[in-house]
Amino acid sequence: MDATTGIHEGNERFRTAVRTADSAGTPALYTRDATVLPPNGDAVHGAEEIERFWATAFENGVTEARPVTLEVIEMGEYALEVGEYTVLSGDDILDRGKIMVLWHRDDGFWKMHRDTWNSSLPLPAG
Amino acid sequence: MDATTGIHEGNERFRTAVRTADSAGTPALYTRDATVLPPNGDAVHGAEEIERFWATAFENGVTEARPVTLEVIEMGEYALEVGEYTVLSGDDILDRGKIMVLWHRDDGFWKMHRDTWNSSLPLPAG
Repeated sequence: MDATTGIHEGNERFRTAVRTADSAGTPALYTRDATVLPPNGDAVHGAEEIERFWATAFENGVTEARPVTLEVIEMGEYALEVGEYTVLSGDDILDRGKIMVLWHRDDGFWKMHRDTWNSSLPLPAG
Repeated sequence: MDATTGIHEGNERFRTAVRTADSAGTPALYTRDATVLPPNGDAVHGAEEIERFWATAFENGVTEARPVTLEVIEMGEYALEVGEYTVLSGDDILDRGKIMVLWHRDDGFWKMHRDTWNSSLPLPAG
């Protein structure tokens, strides 16, 4: 499966996991030794921490994530995705911003290997 | 030049550019069609926008950036760097966080091709 198709399918599985608040299903979207670099927190490594990270996001009200792929740079078994996202809680937009994900072909599936994003909204006045 | 050495040298040139507030020198650290994905703003594309982005950062008081490479994933002419950063204004720490940079070998130098980061500090209460 080519990278662009694999990333599209991976993102569809991710959207479904968020919509169904399936935190237990999130590690399967990532490689075994994946790292997530979330804003305003420390790096998250591996299946257990990734599941806990998404469980917390769902407990905090995230009900939908809409990643949009703008670019895929193919590098053999790896591919870098650059894109945008919107995160919602019900009908409320919680955040929108930019994503950068290194995907890795793993057992026929493309999985997230290094995953980061940041908001495009201004910082709240502190 | 191997990727790890090239990234080290690229980061040294970046530190020098920040320390000397050399915004005009920043585009040379990036590929011609580079994209920067800064937090709390829109994506920045190409030499002119990149120079303006860093000029604004220096005008806003950034006097030093300390990137630290934690990991390099080599992919031929490309390499992904994951790391950490500290940004200072004089002796004050303005921010610290995580970086993810796709580097590309370009004319013998390793240059930043897709560059993003986010803070590890908590969001200010809005």
